[in-house]
Amino acid sequence: MKIEKVNLQEKLSLINDHWHPRIISELNGQHVKLVKSKGEFVWHKHDEEDELFFVISGKLAMELRDKTIEINPGEMIMIPRGVEHRPIALEEVSMMVFEPISTLNTGDSADTTLTKKDLERI
Amino acid sequence: MKIEKVNLQEKLSLINDHWHPRIISELNGQHVKLVKSKGEFVWHKHDEEDELFFVISGKLAMELRDKTIEINPGEMIMIPRGVEHRPIALEEVSMMVFEPISTLNTGDSADTTLTKKDLERI
Repeated sequence: MKIEKVNLQEKLSLINDHWHPRIISELNGQHVKLVKSKGEFVWHKHDEEDELFFVISGKLAMELRDKTIEINPGEMIMIPRGVEHRPIALEEVSMMVFEPISTLNTGDSADTTLTKKDLERI
Repeated sequence: MKIEKVNLQEKLSLINDHWHPRIISELNGQHVKLVKSKGEFVWHKHDEEDELFFVISGKLAMELRDKTIEINPGEMIMIPRGVEHRPIALEEVSMMVFEPISTLNTGDSADTTLTKKDLERI
């Protein structure tokens, strides 16, 4: 395996759509992904996977059932398995996401409009 | 479990020593750590653990046996299990590290001067 560094801004410049994660690294059964987001995602949870969101630019509102947490650049939030959440990006947000390889972006939601499978590695 | 965001700069301001990682999050059997580094670390590898280093500030030189890779802020590098490496920080570097909970900072090195166990969560 070739060992190379990854520049986040360089990889983000390759992404021109929203809610479509790309894989930038893999380790210990986890994927590291980059995603640009705008607008409202769907309510969902992941039964077996904890998820970490790290905001690079923009402001993310993470809706939980009992509160909403605003995440700014340089901040992150970990959503444990089983916890319902809905990310909302009022302006475009760039994020790094850390989660198990098995994780589906829309989790258990019946609304699969935004579901993305077979993610590309960039 | 209380769900709260984590501000990296706020957590970094609590760290006043070098090569002493602190835990800021845990998910899927992995720890997310913050560490400030300056000077040369020891050559080591981890037989069972892949490690991701994300540079927040400063410049990290990651020595491998066949090359040295410079990692700048906003860049990251994944060191697969079994690969010998030595991080060097010519100036102070702040980093976020993702790795399995089991990971010991000095890996298999016989020199345990810099070994840190029982890491604190901040």
